[in-house]
Amino acid sequence: MSERYFEDFAVGQIFVSTLRLPVGKDDILAFAGQFDPQPFHLDEQAARHSIFGGLVASGWHTAALTMRLVTGSEFRSATGTTGLGVEQLRWPAAVRPGDELHIESEVLELRPSKSRPDYGLMKMRIRTLNQRGEVVQDLVSNELVPRRPAGAP
Amino acid sequence: MSERYFEDFAVGQIFVSTLRLPVGKDDILAFAGQFDPQPFHLDEQAARHSIFGGLVASGWHTAALTMRLVTGSEFRSATGTTGLGVEQLRWPAAVRPGDELHIESEVLELRPSKSRPDYGLMKMRIRTLNQRGEVVQDLVSNELVPRRPAGAP
Repeated sequence: MSERYFEDFAVGQIFVSTLRLPVGKDDILAFAGQFDPQPFHLDEQAARHSIFGGLVASGWHTAALTMRLVTGSEFRSATGTTGLGVEQLRWPAAVRPGDELHIESEVLELRPSKSRPDYGLMKMRIRTLNQRGEVVQDLVSNELVPRRPAGAP
Repeated sequence: MSERYFEDFAVGQIFVSTLRLPVGKDDILAFAGQFDPQPFHLDEQAARHSIFGGLVASGWHTAALTMRLVTGSEFRSATGTTGLGVEQLRWPAAVRPGDELHIESEVLELRPSKSRPDYGLMKMRIRTLNQRGEVVQDLVSNELVPRRPAGAP
């Protein structure tokens, strides 16, 4: 589909990603080794005795995977997804080896930018779910979305 | 230093990381290629014409690098850093190739967990700064921190 401008969004719109991202044990270990080297993300034996009861992905890995799903989604705006900030980010359930993730997103608010007349602000709720429909991340974020230039299709 | 329990923290404590993390162009491209494949994170030429005016790291890369700084910091608690969720996450300035990051953290709130008597909840503000002292990320997060078991040093 064509890329979207501010004018193409409406409050209440829901987008469900067709893209599914599998998360393997090696992915979890590689991310944790680089960014979150804690036993419950790196060592199966230690993870079994942790609060998680087994190896789990870093929450920041779940966040990064969610961004990967966002960039492949249908609500991608014309100049890309420029996050201004996050109002809420929760990890209600852990991501474990073998999980497969997708996102369901809803437009919560739309308003023109006061400082940048060529942009609008969009508040979205982006929920990341595993293959059993459990929410593994619940994100509310604000994005900058370009307005449709005169003459654009 | 020894690992910290809930009882070792106090509201108003400030921790400045001695660890400094350099961020190279290759790091930015590698993270973006895997998790946030957008032109302003992947392509210098395209980035120059974007809203950023040059290549910048994904905000989620900055978040992951911040977690790396947290795991190496002095406020690490005894069973590791278990994030319950984020109340605020903002990126006031972009991270660019050649930047060097560190964190400054402050304990905002401490309270015992009602559901888990062996844990407490700690709210922290974690600011990530570059080599010029500019804040590139401002994070307020809630963490689970273990209480000191009877007999622990």
